[in-house]
Amino acid sequence: MIASRTIGIDPGTARMGWGIVEETGGTVSLVDCGVLTTPAGVSQASRLLQLYNDLCSLIARYHPAAAAIEELFFGKNVNTALNVGQARGIALLAFAQAGIPVHEYKPLQVKQALAGYGGADKRQVQEMVRLTLRLPTIPRPDDAADAVAVAICHTYAAPMLRRIGEGR
Amino acid sequence: MIASRTIGIDPGTARMGWGIVEETGGTVSLVDCGVLTTPAGVSQASRLLQLYNDLCSLIARYHPAAAAIEELFFGKNVNTALNVGQARGIALLAFAQAGIPVHEYKPLQVKQALAGYGGADKRQVQEMVRLTLRLPTIPRPDDAADAVAVAICHTYAAPMLRRIGEGR
Repeated sequence: MIASRTIGIDPGTARMGWGIVEETGGTVSLVDCGVLTTPAGVSQASRLLQLYNDLCSLIARYHPAAAAIEELFFGKNVNTALNVGQARGIALLAFAQAGIPVHEYKPLQVKQALAGYGGADKRQVQEMVRLTLRLPTIPRPDDAADAVAVAICHTYAAPMLRRIGEGR
Repeated sequence: MIASRTIGIDPGTARMGWGIVEETGGTVSLVDCGVLTTPAGVSQASRLLQLYNDLCSLIARYHPAAAAIEELFFGKNVNTALNVGQARGIALLAFAQAGIPVHEYKPLQVKQALAGYGGADKRQVQEMVRLTLRLPTIPRPDDAADAVAVAICHTYAAPMLRRIGEGR
């Protein structure tokens, strides 16, 4: 039984959540998760370089076969979107360079995949992350739990995506 | 007399304007400018990877000593800001990796540096780009001219930044 690893990312310049899950024979397990942080006192370019290097280290350590990231950003202001975009851009670049396909999911899709309905709140999604991965507690901090959630969403969606691909 | 080259960037995923100017003994000249484009039919990650590779090629070819980019993004919607952010992020990364300091200027600073007042319109700024660089026509397309403008802005600001640095 070959395990298939997915890395999920919750992007931001100050903090970037990441989570890696593994699917073996229909069972999804947590490999590792955490948050990449950058110091506030340095330039944006230096922070992005540090995030990029840390992300490349994660890719080299865990060899994910796929990456998952939330597609839409909403409800925040234009400057926040610009900052999230910068962090998201270097993540997409790191995956593209490593030949890892990036799959994007809408927040609604993540909620539906985890909790069964799109109206689920953050806490319900996180509790489903805990149950799915058979963990004693919800992964912390929130950025890490959100990254794990999108990785699980892709793990559930992947067999379906493969069937759609085969049907073409 | 040592020439100091600055690369200016006008970021976007579909199109990224770039312009390189050189300052020698108080005279600013255009080295080259253009627009990096990516095909619409491929993934965001692939487009960002192509932009990154093209930008690294420009850095290797022209060896700029400094990079300049507009600081603020405004007047567009959140999704546009996210896309500009992604392209901006990979540009900042490429410069940080090459050890090139990135200087950010507000649109108002670019207008003041080029046209002498912050209320200048786009066409006036572009005409000042033409006059400053002693060109027969305004650089085309607009993305390239905007990138050249921010590069000129930095070239004018650089001696002042150096004096401020020396005064510390």
